[in-house]
Amino acid sequence: MNAEIIAVGSELLTPERLDTNSLYLTAQLNALGVEVVAKAVVGDDRARLAEAVRFALARAEIVILTGGLGPTEDDVTRDAVASALDRPLVFRQELLAALEQRFRRLGRQMAPINRRQALLIEGAAALPNHHGTAPGQWLEHAGRVVVLLPGPPPELQPMFADYCLPRLRPLLPPLVIRTRVLRVAGMPESDLDQRISPVYTRYQDPLTTILAAPGDIQIHLRARSASETEAERVLSELSSQLEALLGENVYSRDGAPLEAVIGQLLRARSVTLSVAESCTGGLLGERITSVPGSSDYFAGGFLVYTDRVKTELLGVDPELLRAHTAVSEPAAAAMAEAARARTGSTFALSTTGIAGPGGGTEAAPVGTVFIGVAGPQGCRVHRFRFLGNRDRVRTLAAQNALDLLRRELVEHPGRCRRI
Amino acid sequence: MNAEIIAVGSELLTPERLDTNSLYLTAQLNALGVEVVAKAVVGDDRARLAEAVRFALARAEIVILTGGLGPTEDDVTRDAVASALDRPLVFRQELLAALEQRFRRLGRQMAPINRRQALLIEGAAALPNHHGTAPGQWLEHAGRVVVLLPGPPPELQPMFADYCLPRLRPLLPPLVIRTRVLRVAGMPESDLDQRISPVYTRYQDPLTTILAAPGDIQIHLRARSASETEAERVLSELSSQLEALLGENVYSRDGAPLEAVIGQLLRARSVTLSVAESCTGGLLGERITSVPGSSDYFAGGFLVYTDRVKTELLGVDPELLRAHTAVSEPAAAAMAEAARARTGSTFALSTTGIAGPGGGTEAAPVGTVFIGVAGPQGCRVHRFRFLGNRDRVRTLAAQNALDLLRRELVEHPGRCRRI
Repeated sequence: MNAEIIAVGSELLTPERLDTNSLYLTAQLNALGVEVVAKAVVGDDRARLAEAVRFALARAEIVILTGGLGPTEDDVTRDAVASALDRPLVFRQELLAALEQRFRRLGRQMAPINRRQALLIEGAAALPNHHGTAPGQWLEHAGRVVVLLPGPPPELQPMFADYCLPRLRPLLPPLVIRTRVLRVAGMPESDLDQRISPVYTRYQDPLTTILAAPGDIQIHLRARSASETEAERVLSELSSQLEALLGENVYSRDGAPLEAVIGQLLRARSVTLSVAESCTGGLLGERITSVPGSSDYFAGGFLVYTDRVKTELLGVDPELLRAHTAVSEPAAAAMAEAARARTGSTFALSTTGIAGPGGGTEAAPVGTVFIGVAGPQGCRVHRFRFLGNRDRVRTLAAQNALDLLRRELVEHPGRCRRI
Repeated sequence: MNAEIIAVGSELLTPERLDTNSLYLTAQLNALGVEVVAKAVVGDDRARLAEAVRFALARAEIVILTGGLGPTEDDVTRDAVASALDRPLVFRQELLAALEQRFRRLGRQMAPINRRQALLIEGAAALPNHHGTAPGQWLEHAGRVVVLLPGPPPELQPMFADYCLPRLRPLLPPLVIRTRVLRVAGMPESDLDQRISPVYTRYQDPLTTILAAPGDIQIHLRARSASETEAERVLSELSSQLEALLGENVYSRDGAPLEAVIGQLLRARSVTLSVAESCTGGLLGERITSVPGSSDYFAGGFLVYTDRVKTELLGVDPELLRAHTAVSEPAAAAMAEAARARTGSTFALSTTGIAGPGGGTEAAPVGTVFIGVAGPQGCRVHRFRFLGNRDRVRTLAAQNALDLLRRELVEHPGRCRRI
């Protein structure tokens, strides 16, 4: 079966915004063996959208629309699809009641304009929205499936997973698609590809895709088979070869992000972590605490963005900062050791650097970052020079700090030393 | 005039890739007064692409195709457009000569397959490609403009700038496009729309688009006029009415994010800020320090994720935490006041709450967040109940904390009080 995805919203036709919901939906549809044959973006224009829906229905068995289900005048998806299918919109009292209840629970008055969200295309089933006000809609029409989903990803994704997948599966032939995601830190994409491409290019199944983000590479392996056993067999065959070539650079075999892997390692060893952040300014703590349950091992942190607070909050010797500057190996070591001492944590990470655009010097140009890793046996400091803008330098600093801790925990659990 | 952009390539229909050329093209077209009314992505399929081109020609005066001009079997754009326009492809000896010369200059042998890149749609002008092998094509057909561009951005962008813009300009009336972006915090989208839609719907020019993210709404106003003065006049006319209706909820009139606005306010008043983050775990600091130069006013912060560190790092009375729990008004107040005292900052923000998915209680269900704002005249604590997943609760907590500080700085610079 083939699908087309139509993203609705004039903001998606500006130079600033892209439709990214289609990536999530494509992954989900591919996993069912459904191919996405076209995508479209249409503005908030009833007539144009109705035309686009008619055109899509002529070439795809499944048409999924995202966005345009809000309560305002701009939200034209309900109307346009009803018009393309030549069906009326019907007002559903039970949807209004659910909306009113949602607003009451939030202690807010429902604006009359929200009544529009209780309109369903005749014959459609409403798809509950547990994370917003707009219900989705599911409709089978002349051998086609038409689905209307809300635009915000936190609303769209659970709605698709919980209410569309169970409806789609019985319509499709059984095909097993299994994916494995290896994640790699600490090496550039070109080195990685040079090392593993002679292997993965020999395989058409699983198919390999490489996605690179700053400091973080994902290797997606996708197998399509008649049986789960066969899919898992070919995945393991290819995956084990790639893992052997990449060694300890592979940090995750199930797609888990680095902060979750760190969390598992800390928890398994019953040890704790603290941070002292200068150039990352909270990004490291934010990533660590994005993992539910991180209070079990995150012992707290210090945001020490200026020399004064490095001294006042962490007790870093002002003489040391004067002699070496705050962006230096001794400063990074003192910060990590102080965070560890003040929180009583087993390990501590520190970051200090020049994120830019200003502040670079000859000795420490923009992008220079020192990362300290303190543990029971002492502290190591690593110096980096990252290229790119402020955001990229901060992202790379946080990613490398977490990766250094991971290597410490995995490789040398008892071999920390003072450098 | 209206345009549609069609990106060609099966790789753009996978879960990993997006068409980004359309962003560049949209910016260029908008600057000429051309609106992009639809975008499409089609795979490497001759028949489907020909259909998509016919559909686009029926609704847009300018149709731009990107990609699919390479030398391989998969590269179907030339064929598909020729078929959609019912014109033959003609072989052009001078294009072949240019290709052969390019290969010679690179010291490489041209593969016979590259001859295909010397095929032009009858009536088309070839657009030189100084950065790759595929020439582009420009064609005027039945009052429409059809442009074929290569997919790689380093080839597409100079080709469009050097060879398409000069051809487009004479076809278009002189038109000035100006945009203004108002940003709003502290009110839900539906309330905002109810308040301002009676005004903005009266205007076709400027055109209003509303973009909502958690706790943050952007109102884009876009004016198209014959002169800059006229564009600015209508923008100011509509903008001032919307600002009057939204009052102090408008935090930015130039699109600047909340953390940058806060930064300007703090800097203008020569005051400083510190944070004590529990449920946001660093997100607040990360946002504040994402602004270059924030070390001028960010006095540092504490990541106090557990009761123990609230006591040890901030000196919050353990009795207070036992009596009220850490997710309480007194805890938020104590945290903000301690951060202010320990860093010597003028203001301090604190967050403490249940981000979920676990940890909710009857008294403080998941999503409950207390935000403290401490300043020279005392401290106020605000209680919120946010809906959504962990990520959304944390985002809303950080956004509201920054917004509360903004209101304190703007509205009541000298009227802080203890609640």
